[in-house]
Amino acid sequence: MNKLEEKIISDGKVLEGNVLKVDGFLNHRVDVEILKWMGEEFRRRFDGVKVDKILTIEASGIAIASSAALCFGVPLLFAKKSQSVNVTGDKLCSKVYSFTHKCWNNIFVSAEYLSKGEKILIVDDFLASGSALEGLVDLVSQAGAEVVGIGIAIEKGFQDGGRRIREKGCRLESLAIVESMDCRTGEIIFR
Amino acid sequence: MNKLEEKIISDGKVLEGNVLKVDGFLNHRVDVEILKWMGEEFRRRFDGVKVDKILTIEASGIAIASSAALCFGVPLLFAKKSQSVNVTGDKLCSKVYSFTHKCWNNIFVSAEYLSKGEKILIVDDFLASGSALEGLVDLVSQAGAEVVGIGIAIEKGFQDGGRRIREKGCRLESLAIVESMDCRTGEIIFR
Repeated sequence: MNKLEEKIISDGKVLEGNVLKVDGFLNHRVDVEILKWMGEEFRRRFDGVKVDKILTIEASGIAIASSAALCFGVPLLFAKKSQSVNVTGDKLCSKVYSFTHKCWNNIFVSAEYLSKGEKILIVDDFLASGSALEGLVDLVSQAGAEVVGIGIAIEKGFQDGGRRIREKGCRLESLAIVESMDCRTGEIIFR
Repeated sequence: MNKLEEKIISDGKVLEGNVLKVDGFLNHRVDVEILKWMGEEFRRRFDGVKVDKILTIEASGIAIASSAALCFGVPLLFAKKSQSVNVTGDKLCSKVYSFTHKCWNNIFVSAEYLSKGEKILIVDDFLASGSALEGLVDLVSQAGAEVVGIGIAIEKGFQDGGRRIREKGCRLESLAIVESMDCRTGEIIFR
């Protein structure tokens, strides 16, 4: 088991409805040792891949993507979910369904920050149905940029987002893939 | 001028309505050199101060607070604005007005991640009216924890949030304090 898988076993909790609660170290309170390790591990796994920019989506992807951006030494861009007076000019927009919040979100980036031909590494905390990820891939595609890889902290291997992304030929690296989990026993099995 | 002030001069844009647009390097696209420098600079300015945890608020504070947490080697906690199935148990709640989005937001943290007696450094990207900051200070106070310092990237010195926080005796370190800015000429003057 790697550091993240160990942390999931020691601190994660399996709740009803296929919820893996990791807000003690990943997406509410963030453990910096794990945060640093994840950035370095993405750097190691995508060694030799040219990356111009890291793209994530607010909010809980930002910490992990920041750590990765610091390790890669490239800019970070986070897609936004809500309009802001601070973002002006042309936007690229997509739509994603949040199973966590049970609603559709419009997501967008400023067109000026995602350019044709740029090599983009997408980073996010979770991959389950893949809706958020497909929204991000769509933004990159609209810009005429290229997804050179996708780095995910935790993939729920029993949902089909990962399979669909891999079938498209995208290089997807998930640091922990949960094959199955049981809310009655608390057992978590990794792929 | 420090690195952040130089970046604001070179890449920031002054828009109507006292908006300082820095989404090219701070709160949408994030420059990693500046990101790293901000974390290190907070570490330097709060040298000798005991910090147990860094607290920020989603979304745009997370990148800066992550960089700071990596430099301090302490956990990061980000207050959330929306309910999530992943956050269960008792919560500490407060209310903040977002001038950026022109609405009131409920913000909360899980009570278990903010403990009595903990020494908290609050980090955020902007300080203007101080509404978000007062919400975060309120959460810390509800937990019986202590705000040992506040680190802000950009303070709008012509709005009264900073003055009110300093009058309360809080140690506030803003990396760039904009004394005045002019949307017609684009001129930005730092304190």
